[in-house]
Amino acid sequence: MDPHDPAGSIADMADRCRNWGRWGEDDVLGTLNFIDDAKRLEAARLVQTGRTFSLAQPFNMDGPQRGWRRRTNPVHTMLDTGTDAEYGNQGFPHGLGGADDIIAMPLQCSTQWDGLGHIFDRGKAWNGRRAGQVVTSDGDHFTGIETTVDQFVSRGVLLDVGRALAEDLGCDEPELPDGFAITFEHIEATMERQGITASVGRGDILLIRTGQYGRSLREGWGTYAGGPAPGLSFTTAPWLHEREVAAVATDTWGFEVRPNEFESAFQPLHQVVIPNMGLFIGEMWNLEGLAAHCAAESRYEFLLTAAPLPITGAVGSPLNPIALL
Amino acid sequence: MDPHDPAGSIADMADRCRNWGRWGEDDVLGTLNFIDDAKRLEAARLVQTGRTFSLAQPFNMDGPQRGWRRRTNPVHTMLDTGTDAEYGNQGFPHGLGGADDIIAMPLQCSTQWDGLGHIFDRGKAWNGRRAGQVVTSDGDHFTGIETTVDQFVSRGVLLDVGRALAEDLGCDEPELPDGFAITFEHIEATMERQGITASVGRGDILLIRTGQYGRSLREGWGTYAGGPAPGLSFTTAPWLHEREVAAVATDTWGFEVRPNEFESAFQPLHQVVIPNMGLFIGEMWNLEGLAAHCAAESRYEFLLTAAPLPITGAVGSPLNPIALL
Amino acid sequence: MDPHDPAGSIADMADRCRNWGRWGEDDVLGTLNFIDDAKRLEAARLVQTGRTFSLAQPFNMDGPQRGWRRRTNPVHTMLDTGTDAEYGNQGFPHGLGGADDIIAMPLQCSTQWDGLGHIFDRGKAWNGRRAGQVVTSDGDHFTGIETTVDQFVSRGVLLDVGRALAEDLGCDEPELPDGFAITFEHIEATMERQGITASVGRGDILLIRTGQYGRSLREGWGTYAGGPAPGLSFTTAPWLHEREVAAVATDTWGFEVRPNEFESAFQPLHQVVIPNMGLFIGEMWNLEGLAAHCAAESRYEFLLTAAPLPITGAVGSPLNPIALL
Amino acid sequence: MDPHDPAGSIADMADRCRNWGRWGEDDVLGTLNFIDDAKRLEAARLVQTGRTFSLAQPFNMDGPQRGWRRRTNPVHTMLDTGTDAEYGNQGFPHGLGGADDIIAMPLQCSTQWDGLGHIFDRGKAWNGRRAGQVVTSDGDHFTGIETTVDQFVSRGVLLDVGRALAEDLGCDEPELPDGFAITFEHIEATMERQGITASVGRGDILLIRTGQYGRSLREGWGTYAGGPAPGLSFTTAPWLHEREVAAVATDTWGFEVRPNEFESAFQPLHQVVIPNMGLFIGEMWNLEGLAAHCAAESRYEFLLTAAPLPITGAVGSPLNPIALL
Repeated sequence: MDPHDPAGSIADMADRCRNWGRWGEDDVLGTLNFIDDAKRLEAARLVQTGRTFSLAQPFNMDGPQRGWRRRTNPVHTMLDTGTDAEYGNQGFPHGLGGADDIIAMPLQCSTQWDGLGHIFDRGKAWNGRRAGQVVTSDGDHFTGIETTVDQFVSRGVLLDVGRALAEDLGCDEPELPDGFAITFEHIEATMERQGITASVGRGDILLIRTGQYGRSLREGWGTYAGGPAPGLSFTTAPWLHEREVAAVATDTWGFEVRPNEFESAFQPLHQVVIPNMGLFIGEMWNLEGLAAHCAAESRYEFLLTAAPLPITGAVGSPLNPIALL
Repeated sequence: MDPHDPAGSIADMADRCRNWGRWGEDDVLGTLNFIDDAKRLEAARLVQTGRTFSLAQPFNMDGPQRGWRRRTNPVHTMLDTGTDAEYGNQGFPHGLGGADDIIAMPLQCSTQWDGLGHIFDRGKAWNGRRAGQVVTSDGDHFTGIETTVDQFVSRGVLLDVGRALAEDLGCDEPELPDGFAITFEHIEATMERQGITASVGRGDILLIRTGQYGRSLREGWGTYAGGPAPGLSFTTAPWLHEREVAAVATDTWGFEVRPNEFESAFQPLHQVVIPNMGLFIGEMWNLEGLAAHCAAESRYEFLLTAAPLPITGAVGSPLNPIALL
Repeated sequence: MDPHDPAGSIADMADRCRNWGRWGEDDVLGTLNFIDDAKRLEAARLVQTGRTFSLAQPFNMDGPQRGWRRRTNPVHTMLDTGTDAEYGNQGFPHGLGGADDIIAMPLQCSTQWDGLGHIFDRGKAWNGRRAGQVVTSDGDHFTGIETTVDQFVSRGVLLDVGRALAEDLGCDEPELPDGFAITFEHIEATMERQGITASVGRGDILLIRTGQYGRSLREGWGTYAGGPAPGLSFTTAPWLHEREVAAVATDTWGFEVRPNEFESAFQPLHQVVIPNMGLFIGEMWNLEGLAAHCAAESRYEFLLTAAPLPITGAVGSPLNPIALL
Repeated sequence: MDPHDPAGSIADMADRCRNWGRWGEDDVLGTLNFIDDAKRLEAARLVQTGRTFSLAQPFNMDGPQRGWRRRTNPVHTMLDTGTDAEYGNQGFPHGLGGADDIIAMPLQCSTQWDGLGHIFDRGKAWNGRRAGQVVTSDGDHFTGIETTVDQFVSRGVLLDVGRALAEDLGCDEPELPDGFAITFEHIEATMERQGITASVGRGDILLIRTGQYGRSLREGWGTYAGGPAPGLSFTTAPWLHEREVAAVATDTWGFEVRPNEFESAFQPLHQVVIPNMGLFIGEMWNLEGLAAHCAAESRYEFLLTAAPLPITGAVGSPLNPIALL
């Protein structure tokens, strides 16, 4: 990559990692094609204890969003309350009372999947379709997140890069500093350190913990949403491509390192991997509890069920990923 | 039950099925306490093929809601589109384009869990708390759905009552007619017909298919949201109590039979099982694909991951339940 | 107009009524330019009694919307309630209690102005700008309704066509039947019948009552939102152009007659008058009380204050128009 | 007032200023009863030039809200865009294109009226009703803002306290410092300085400019929403009561001085004037343009049309107030 030439570097990397046509002209699943029944069966057989971890952040007004591109925190309001029920002004018979509620939220406000219609490269969406034909004001007509409704079940692998590198980096906490670019060498070092259960291969859903979310819990959100953060280096695209992972999620707002590695750029790795590779990206996942448990047990693989809400035409979805160990 | 006396019948049934204090004064999980790691491990071991089924209905404007108590269908709108990206008016560098979206939806608009704060009995919420102290305009301060964030993983059992009884009822389709009350005799008959994999016990998540959702797909929604429907009889409460199920979900709007079995009543079974028994209820689940598969394979048990969105203080949650067989 | 050729007829009519460039290249106000301080002073001098009429429909869930193009009725929910305040669970000191609320609504859900960015003709917006440069996912960058924030004050004139023609049409109520096309002859006849206070000229805001809203109050909404309705004929465009009115509002969903007068068309008069003439259109106004009063007093002119909410970048706005007589 | 005893001081002041029963048991209009047709006619006769000023702040994401009690800035999103129209993917015939939009906003997010159901005093709402019977989760059943739909037209009077006192206070700008409590002496001094057109009497809508909004335009919002601000002193309640004003609006978030004048209190003047006096309060009004004009012309009275959106059951409303001079 040439730090002075993001456009050229992105074009080259996109050529190198492009999967257009690999699963046919009509494909809408991209790298989810790497998951099949056999893979899921293998994943189910990893379960040893029945212990679960939710990998979702809370959905509430105290979240990290600051309004960028109208991304607010979720606004949850009550349509009916227990106070009214106890007061007796709901009009129901025989002592029945009820509470109901409603939410308004950007689909990217908290723990989420980016759908394949979330990012475009020079006017093109996944599989080479024209961006303007894929996502209009009516939503995503091809790769809406509903097409993945039953797909996100596979072997999950946690790479706790924050924990693996902290000592070498002189960090007191098992966390990477903001602005730290995770290269494939860092990934390989983490895998080696974590051992055999941390191998990464075809169809896996890869979870990369930087530790930034844990730091935010301790120190407050600050600029978690869009500011400096540890994350994947632009240069990891070929590694992700070769490993044939089905999806990658991180505990940060933006998946890739911020500031981005070019002199002037905006989320260049997204531009390569989503529309060109067809890779699903998860962001703002809460890996803290899972990571502590994995470290204690020295075991980093599990059955991961990470189902999006099937919102028709959505270019992403909030979710509550569940690891079953 | 006395059809002329819903209040008295509800009071008696509530006394009979009440679990207040069973898991301590501070309990917020109710019947989810029946699920433990061993149960989940047992459930994971049921997986034989790696086949998945999503049990969610689509989330879009074409859903069943008609505005009752301000329950609308979900409104999904775009914050950024591919058309804009291709047109080149988004202001991003190096050919990057993006699409983003937002949703506004009642939490009970489509496939959902009722939380324990959803229904009250004579001013009392689950575990005997005062309704007005549990759910205010700020949400549920005790039993918000976020408390169940990592709980809904267990053995799922499908009881396809619609398919089991259709022939005896003279129905052409494997569906119960609207207004049909499913008694425990019907449940037992279905279990017997389905065989050993349809046994129901402690910690199971029970899925009851009436077939009404399939009928709606064929014939249109009509009054699916709130009108006549097949569903559980009020008299099944003790059976649900004795079996110690962790949760029950149906493919209907309202779980219990409608019109309700009393001369004049509104959701009396809800009033017994949610605040008194502490039972979690799922509604508007899509059991069509799963049921056809189970019938073909004569196998009715599976690993079920049914994680709510952890919306802080919510009295319910939309979700995408995943059965892994 | 040729009923078999909407495209050709629209093109001809657009050429005839186009005001592009009339108020300079940068204009964003269109026909509002016809209102000046002298006009407003003249309008203020019409006030004789101090009587007011609101011309707004109620904003609530019982409105006419049925979901077309995601236009729902307004959803109003409480953030804080009096029940909570009286119960004492709000946490305020010294006996203070409060209620707050929130609304989600399409800007075209009830009584509203169409902004100049609401309709395009063959890819062009008002004053000849490219539609894609004017209204993106971020809103209207040129003619957002906020540009009219202090403009909608002028002489209002009510033409009660429903009342004027009912007798000749054999209608029992002072209402036009659905599908009735109001031509300029009907307008002139109404003006003549109403007398000198019903003259229409430069800068006036013209209110045309068909009576359909009154009928809906009596008979229910039915297909008020988008179905058959009385309204302006396509052929009235030149009359509106020559009279130099500042704006026109009706008591119907769609301003123009429906079904439209062509064999197959959709709102052709909108396509002529909004992007080409620069005319502001009001819809779903409640003219019932005002019309009864005007008929009783035989006086049809008044000071009209019809201020939109200055929502930045909006292509329309809900409002509460006030007539002061 | 006793700064150590807010509860006692509020109780005394409430007794002194209470209007309960003054306009009958069923009254819902409070001090709006001071406006009648004669008053509105008098107001219309004040118009001399036809010049208008909008007194609304912009409604957009760049507003002052910071999320307190879930009050966000308005979120405006597009349902259809010009980009799609120009691209040709909307599906309309004969070259028609359209744009539509939607908004979600707390009713107190920007320029607004507080309705009479907005504040309670020791469990009581306006006219002595029980708070829990007036405002439930379904909204305000008595004093919903829709009851005022045609009421807010009267003589407006601007008291530009910021401009009147700045010199004496040694301020460079015509603005009061944050935390400055405006007493009735300050009000009287301002009236005297402004002259005869600034007299205040029965039925007037009083606009009090502190200058804080102008300062925020220059220096950024900071803590405009809820932080320190100039505003009315608690001690002005009797003056407002005696003058029989119909409503009072300011250019600040909270109407009264902040921090409040008691050792520990929250909006004590609200607690006196809304539920007890029945006074309508306007907040976050933009008085900058009007004030500059009035100062230049030495004329401070005008026709004010300040119509709320008639949202059924709302305890307040956004609006665009129009002064016509």
